[in-house]
Amino acid sequence: MCGIVGISASSHVNQALFDALTVLQHRGQDAAGIVTCHEGRFFMRKDNGLVKDVFRTRHMKLLEGNIGIGHVRYPTAGSSSSAEAQPFYVNSPYGIALAHNGNLTNADAIKEHLFRTELRHINTSSDSEILLNVFAHELQQLGKLSPTPDDIFTTVERVYGRCEGGYSVVAVINGYGMVGFRDPNGIRPLVFGERDTADGKEYMIASESVALDVLGFKLVRDVRPGEAVYIDHNRQLHTRQCASEASCTPCIFEYVYFARPDSILDKVSVYKSRIRMGQKLADKILEERSDHDIDVVMPIPDTSRTAALELATRLGVSYREGFVKNRYIGRTFIMPGQTQRKKSVRQKLNAIDLEFKGKNVLLVDDSIVRGTTCKQIIEMARDAGAKKVYFCSAAPAVRFPNVYGIDMPTASELIAHGQTDDEVCQQIGADWLIYQELNDLIEAVRAGNPDLAAFDCSVFDGKYLTGHIDEVYLNQLAMQRSDSAKLEREARENAVIDMHNESA
Amino acid sequence: MCGIVGISASSHVNQALFDALTVLQHRGQDAAGIVTCHEGRFFMRKDNGLVKDVFRTRHMKLLEGNIGIGHVRYPTAGSSSSAEAQPFYVNSPYGIALAHNGNLTNADAIKEHLFRTELRHINTSSDSEILLNVFAHELQQLGKLSPTPDDIFTTVERVYGRCEGGYSVVAVINGYGMVGFRDPNGIRPLVFGERDTADGKEYMIASESVALDVLGFKLVRDVRPGEAVYIDHNRQLHTRQCASEASCTPCIFEYVYFARPDSILDKVSVYKSRIRMGQKLADKILEERSDHDIDVVMPIPDTSRTAALELATRLGVSYREGFVKNRYIGRTFIMPGQTQRKKSVRQKLNAIDLEFKGKNVLLVDDSIVRGTTCKQIIEMARDAGAKKVYFCSAAPAVRFPNVYGIDMPTASELIAHGQTDDEVCQQIGADWLIYQELNDLIEAVRAGNPDLAAFDCSVFDGKYLTGHIDEVYLNQLAMQRSDSAKLEREARENAVIDMHNESA
Amino acid sequence: MCGIVGISASSHVNQALFDALTVLQHRGQDAAGIVTCHEGRFFMRKDNGLVKDVFRTRHMKLLEGNIGIGHVRYPTAGSSSSAEAQPFYVNSPYGIALAHNGNLTNADAIKEHLFRTELRHINTSSDSEILLNVFAHELQQLGKLSPTPDDIFTTVERVYGRCEGGYSVVAVINGYGMVGFRDPNGIRPLVFGERDTADGKEYMIASESVALDVLGFKLVRDVRPGEAVYIDHNRQLHTRQCASEASCTPCIFEYVYFARPDSILDKVSVYKSRIRMGQKLADKILEERSDHDIDVVMPIPDTSRTAALELATRLGVSYREGFVKNRYIGRTFIMPGQTQRKKSVRQKLNAIDLEFKGKNVLLVDDSIVRGTTCKQIIEMARDAGAKKVYFCSAAPAVRFPNVYGIDMPTASELIAHGQTDDEVCQQIGADWLIYQELNDLIEAVRAGNPDLAAFDCSVFDGKYLTGHIDEVYLNQLAMQRSDSAKLEREARENAVIDMHNESA
Amino acid sequence: MCGIVGISASSHVNQALFDALTVLQHRGQDAAGIVTCHEGRFFMRKDNGLVKDVFRTRHMKLLEGNIGIGHVRYPTAGSSSSAEAQPFYVNSPYGIALAHNGNLTNADAIKEHLFRTELRHINTSSDSEILLNVFAHELQQLGKLSPTPDDIFTTVERVYGRCEGGYSVVAVINGYGMVGFRDPNGIRPLVFGERDTADGKEYMIASESVALDVLGFKLVRDVRPGEAVYIDHNRQLHTRQCASEASCTPCIFEYVYFARPDSILDKVSVYKSRIRMGQKLADKILEERSDHDIDVVMPIPDTSRTAALELATRLGVSYREGFVKNRYIGRTFIMPGQTQRKKSVRQKLNAIDLEFKGKNVLLVDDSIVRGTTCKQIIEMARDAGAKKVYFCSAAPAVRFPNVYGIDMPTASELIAHGQTDDEVCQQIGADWLIYQELNDLIEAVRAGNPDLAAFDCSVFDGKYLTGHIDEVYLNQLAMQRSDSAKLEREARENAVIDMHNESA
Repeated sequence: MCGIVGISASSHVNQALFDALTVLQHRGQDAAGIVTCHEGRFFMRKDNGLVKDVFRTRHMKLLEGNIGIGHVRYPTAGSSSSAEAQPFYVNSPYGIALAHNGNLTNADAIKEHLFRTELRHINTSSDSEILLNVFAHELQQLGKLSPTPDDIFTTVERVYGRCEGGYSVVAVINGYGMVGFRDPNGIRPLVFGERDTADGKEYMIASESVALDVLGFKLVRDVRPGEAVYIDHNRQLHTRQCASEASCTPCIFEYVYFARPDSILDKVSVYKSRIRMGQKLADKILEERSDHDIDVVMPIPDTSRTAALELATRLGVSYREGFVKNRYIGRTFIMPGQTQRKKSVRQKLNAIDLEFKGKNVLLVDDSIVRGTTCKQIIEMARDAGAKKVYFCSAAPAVRFPNVYGIDMPTASELIAHGQTDDEVCQQIGADWLIYQELNDLIEAVRAGNPDLAAFDCSVFDGKYLTGHIDEVYLNQLAMQRSDSAKLEREARENAVIDMHNESA
Repeated sequence: MCGIVGISASSHVNQALFDALTVLQHRGQDAAGIVTCHEGRFFMRKDNGLVKDVFRTRHMKLLEGNIGIGHVRYPTAGSSSSAEAQPFYVNSPYGIALAHNGNLTNADAIKEHLFRTELRHINTSSDSEILLNVFAHELQQLGKLSPTPDDIFTTVERVYGRCEGGYSVVAVINGYGMVGFRDPNGIRPLVFGERDTADGKEYMIASESVALDVLGFKLVRDVRPGEAVYIDHNRQLHTRQCASEASCTPCIFEYVYFARPDSILDKVSVYKSRIRMGQKLADKILEERSDHDIDVVMPIPDTSRTAALELATRLGVSYREGFVKNRYIGRTFIMPGQTQRKKSVRQKLNAIDLEFKGKNVLLVDDSIVRGTTCKQIIEMARDAGAKKVYFCSAAPAVRFPNVYGIDMPTASELIAHGQTDDEVCQQIGADWLIYQELNDLIEAVRAGNPDLAAFDCSVFDGKYLTGHIDEVYLNQLAMQRSDSAKLEREARENAVIDMHNESA
Repeated sequence: MCGIVGISASSHVNQALFDALTVLQHRGQDAAGIVTCHEGRFFMRKDNGLVKDVFRTRHMKLLEGNIGIGHVRYPTAGSSSSAEAQPFYVNSPYGIALAHNGNLTNADAIKEHLFRTELRHINTSSDSEILLNVFAHELQQLGKLSPTPDDIFTTVERVYGRCEGGYSVVAVINGYGMVGFRDPNGIRPLVFGERDTADGKEYMIASESVALDVLGFKLVRDVRPGEAVYIDHNRQLHTRQCASEASCTPCIFEYVYFARPDSILDKVSVYKSRIRMGQKLADKILEERSDHDIDVVMPIPDTSRTAALELATRLGVSYREGFVKNRYIGRTFIMPGQTQRKKSVRQKLNAIDLEFKGKNVLLVDDSIVRGTTCKQIIEMARDAGAKKVYFCSAAPAVRFPNVYGIDMPTASELIAHGQTDDEVCQQIGADWLIYQELNDLIEAVRAGNPDLAAFDCSVFDGKYLTGHIDEVYLNQLAMQRSDSAKLEREARENAVIDMHNESA
Repeated sequence: MCGIVGISASSHVNQALFDALTVLQHRGQDAAGIVTCHEGRFFMRKDNGLVKDVFRTRHMKLLEGNIGIGHVRYPTAGSSSSAEAQPFYVNSPYGIALAHNGNLTNADAIKEHLFRTELRHINTSSDSEILLNVFAHELQQLGKLSPTPDDIFTTVERVYGRCEGGYSVVAVINGYGMVGFRDPNGIRPLVFGERDTADGKEYMIASESVALDVLGFKLVRDVRPGEAVYIDHNRQLHTRQCASEASCTPCIFEYVYFARPDSILDKVSVYKSRIRMGQKLADKILEERSDHDIDVVMPIPDTSRTAALELATRLGVSYREGFVKNRYIGRTFIMPGQTQRKKSVRQKLNAIDLEFKGKNVLLVDDSIVRGTTCKQIIEMARDAGAKKVYFCSAAPAVRFPNVYGIDMPTASELIAHGQTDDEVCQQIGADWLIYQELNDLIEAVRAGNPDLAAFDCSVFDGKYLTGHIDEVYLNQLAMQRSDSAKLEREARENAVIDMHNESA
């Protein structure tokens, strides 16, 4: 997952982009980048690290300009090297910088075509560089010295025609304007807002509405699937539906886990949807375990707290926060002659024994992915003195990999892949386990916006909305995501030509 | 506030010290340091920053030794320069390194005496350097080539005789052992624990029990006020009550705010005490506002959540987390020609409007100090659509400065200093305001350990347990703590001779 | 002045490029960069600083590939920001990286054309980015998926047609090969050499022959003015004369000052040419000052030592090194509230008083540019006790700015601009002053290679070999080179999008 | 070898100390440090690296004070870790900082005594820490609150009584003054000078007179062997002969190699002494090789140039600089899977072939130590086409290790150890070899100051001026200096507690 933002304003946007990226930091803590454009020049700073660490005063001073885009990265199928941090830049035509959130599922084919037919070299393994070059090539083909909004929209239309997958994009075209667009299935979120100033309207495009809130922008609406939003150099807003076939099928995992609770995505309050997840889950427990002997409900902090509290209330059982999260994360140093110590959940959570002693505890998490953490937490609960440990997940069983920008493990690493709920229960060591029903999850979200006909639920049901997601593709993805593959890539890609500035 | 730890083990302690400091990081995010001792040499690394940033693999490799101490710092009356990070070191006698949590209230007098009579130069404004030199001088006076446990205890006794204030201390004496001690009033917490290994018992002394938990040490007990705990170079434990007059009057603010909920301090579970604070506060509300029209109870995240949830349950009112905390903190860059923008609570908190709209909201915080944040939060609640905004504080009104190691503002900066509750209510803009009663707070804590006869409640009642806290002292403290004083000190003290290593 | 190098070898070239840049470091200490190409990817590292500081092991590890180019920069008309360090890169067509030494005199016109007609955005003020884009555009126009040597030569021919000025260039084309070329006047030097290995011939192109020597390459010959040298991906050498009108008029200042004495440029040994400069100068002194009372000849270290020793021998006067150069250069820190101290030559040179006392001293320097250093040195000599101080310059009076890549001051800053020799003599405070005759200088160089019909002597005679060097152009250059202009540019350009890697 | 400086002035001394260390940088490029004292506080910055790299504006700003000392380090018997950079500091008594140049030959015995009797812990392997603690202990024993000049001199006297070896020292005593002293044999140099200002006299103590020159101080005189120079806090100068038995026997290697030519040490101009070395050597050649067929004399740059030029003149043979030194030193990166390439002199020197071709060449170096470089240079000369290669050394054969602060190899690594001149000649591959006679060398230096009765010539004759230099001591030294010992020490000592500041 990644977070993106673009701002077109009447004064320098560096601080606003910085603030917006900080608010979107939960979408990616791996790397951060900003590009601004001022008097015909691009200024860029990107690097691995948190927003607060990547941008120092010396960088901010130089990021001049009233227009710019920013990005925070969570490692996806691409690598995690600093050279592949976003935004990316090409100088032809015009000078264009671009950042995106998502994943292209036909990246290899596009890359091949870009090189063979359009002679454009892609130097990294980032989909952003591909998206940027497709956009640049199509815009170049129009051959205009001054592209019009129409030209921009034509270009986006052609990008939609070539790029499959889930992607939300912001880009700056030197001298002309800022554009945002969202794949025709609307898998990844994208919103835009405006702010009135003495010098006229200012615009912001962002992954989540919370970025608008914190910066004092008013949410105009979500960018529609297949639509493009263009703010020209006079700060005039232009929008157009560019994809002929589009449908809104947002990634349901945004509501389960990724998005901030205070965001509203496709008109659904994430917080409210989580409350409803808790309600639905409580109902299922009451139905399946009507004679339950739960003494206390406990969330696995932090995401599941909203659902867990509602669930406890609905069950009429007391709610306690028996696990305390270690806010400050340490690391294990590998000293010469030592082998890596097994990473333990104990570095992340600590149990308050008093709350567990002699009780039947129901633990609530947002989802179960690999299951290893889950298993350790259940052990911790037992070590802390719990009599029985029940477990429930606000999302259904995660059984399939994600191909639209979430860095999920491969199928074989998912505990529920090819397993029954009972088998999972046994493996994690719970006394019983209850998963949310997929329909209930869908209902919990859709209740906020009945217009949403469908969602991308592929990690739960294995149904991929875009074409070409077959065995071959998934195997290739699995190989890319294996740990050894990652390590090798990182080593190789850190020196790749990027386009960013020196930190010193 | 600061956090301290000392470990004497059968193998290298660097990773364990690092992990313990990470767990104690909530007690100070300003600076961190570790000293280890190996084959007659001290190794040190300290710097400003979070534990995870201060210690890199290159530092850890060099921090050899089976014995060592660590420190995390929250700025106190001393400065916040990196040169004043702890631990401190003197080479005479033996080589001693020391770290502490707390504040000496007769620091100036001791410093003068150290120089005039004992010719010991204090190069920083840190109390730690003073404590270390008093300890070193007294130990040197005994003139032993090999100090016995008796000598150590005699030395601590003399330190108690000379040093007033609240302080918990760990120190390593090169070649001889590790000592921990706690001021005769037991104001600051200190616990110790043990762990069995194939190579015998290992010991850990720490500010909070949670550090023992996470590292797999068993809590033996709190270090008693005026006691000293000494682990010699054979890892034999020696303890002795060194102060003739001692009483256990722990700082009650540890329970209100500082300590982690999963810690047990002086036998009281912090988490449980906070639940009881919520209960007591609910009772007061029911009594004073029996006809309240509260629709929803909301905590100001994070500390007050425990009390707020219990309070809501007791009131029978629904509990919602309407404020979302921005976990990632940004900063405001000062660009050339700009003036500092006013810092806003909006960078820290975001309101979920849906939860406020048309409701009477009771906000719960752990305490009210300056009142500025509080006021902004109430405004946010109203902006989000709240009909009425009530406010309650799990602690009584903070009216007096702290002189025992908490970096509270000076009296004049405390909103409640010399003000009635109604005046505070008006200033923060609440519809009504309810403070916890001091007796209720005391009861909420004491319920966990009836043996606790009294507490340091000086920030609430202005009664200072140690001598010499008069107008003159407090004025001097106020001057030191003023912002301008801090800035000047920082600039000056960063290059002060410390004793620590290069990061490069 | 800058230094460039390109290597095509049978194994990784990172260390060899590093070594070559170190040898060429005298041509530019301001910034350094390397690009390598490996398995279809470019790897780049560039930053401000000396070669030894810019490249750390972590960078070298990542600079994989058997082909690559490198650059060291001396500030020229462009700025000195790290973002403008070379090489530069574009991804279309193929991916090309390029570095150059020199200056384009029609840069603005090309830049305008590139943008308006070819839609290529130039993001920095570096001529290299312009050269690269002209090269890339012309190559792209040929529209080949696999460019042949013919295509490369056609492209270079077109570059010659568009780019005026003095420039030597190396470039790598991803997947295809390495090319080197030199402007049709041969103003800047460029040589190439070869080395036999078990895996076949390896090639190196470099600014000076000394880089070949130190790396064990055999000098094949100078690249001819207007020629191009292409080593394809099979390491086959192709060469072609691409400019129809070409003549060899090398910059004579290379021999006077820039080049290393152990280099051979256009078949002339720099060392030998300097010896001859000393002889010619001696002859002029003997002629003009046949009754001279010189007691001792002293060089201004380091460049003038060769000529000074020969001059002394010819004069039959003893030679002494009375000035000692401070090899380690300090700097003057500007403390708050201080103004910049005047920089003094005393930080660079120290006089051995004993050698001056009571003597008539003839000081020899390679040239006189601003004259300020010269004046201070003469003062130092007098302070050290010299009776009389004579001065001579191995080069004629520098009266005009350089437009071919040497960062000379503007005309008004040149002490000899519009001044007679006597006026200069008076201003620097010498008892008498003798300049080399331009013809003598030319003869001193040409004696090494009688085929050299002419030289670029524009700084001495104001005759510019390429067109369009008029008042307007020179004024504009003057403005760019003024100190205030430089400062502003630096601040602005450091964050400019470049394409290089993070140091961290 | 190291360089030291101390300044007591009427305004801040940071820039002056920085400048002085830059001038003394040739005495040590390994590490640098400064301590200043201001309003009762010490400020320190030290780290590995060149002076220009160790001190940044942020450090300079903080190094406040009108009094301070500085140090540049060349690795000696102690380690080269940054933690062992000088100056060192103790806080008892008064606060004292100290730096020195030299080596204690009874360090181990003193260290043992310091710990056992005086309970002072030495945390590093630096002699400076020992010297400082001896000085501190002796001063503390006097028990004064305000030490008088008499007390300082008594203390220095006692230091002389306890410390054997060669050492020059500067120290600052907080609140009281600055002291400089030099071992009773005057082995290492130390001078002092003064400068008049509107605010009275300012004083500087330094290793070499050149530091005084460059900073505008007038050389007063050398500090005498066994003398102490004390500038009190009113900037009053006090001097006293503190050692009863003292003689001036300076290290003759300072003249041969270490000192800058423009320095005057013990009243002898280093430059002049080198000219005389050339003369003496010429005389010996004329005597031993009266029928020589030398065509050209060439120095090995840089030190030997002075002697070589004089030698050539005396021989009546032409002088040429056929070797060009690479001013910029590269390094060899060890890539994964590679082994270290053999370091070659070719990275340091390049031969101008034209000067060698067909000639009989006499190479002149200042001395021959390991002989490996020498051998490679002779090979280079032959490769460049020399017919015959003769070699001469301005110093006699180096046959014994140095124990007074020069980091010479151990005896077994010296090419001349136990070898005849002919054997050395054969090993280095010269056609013939001539060494300076020791008497000639002594005469060459003494000619500048006939009062100098004797010198430390131990590396040539094995006669050590101080006691206890026996087989056991030399073997121990040899072990410490072996490469493997160095590597291990470095790794261990980098984290040792020092007392210096963070670079960040």
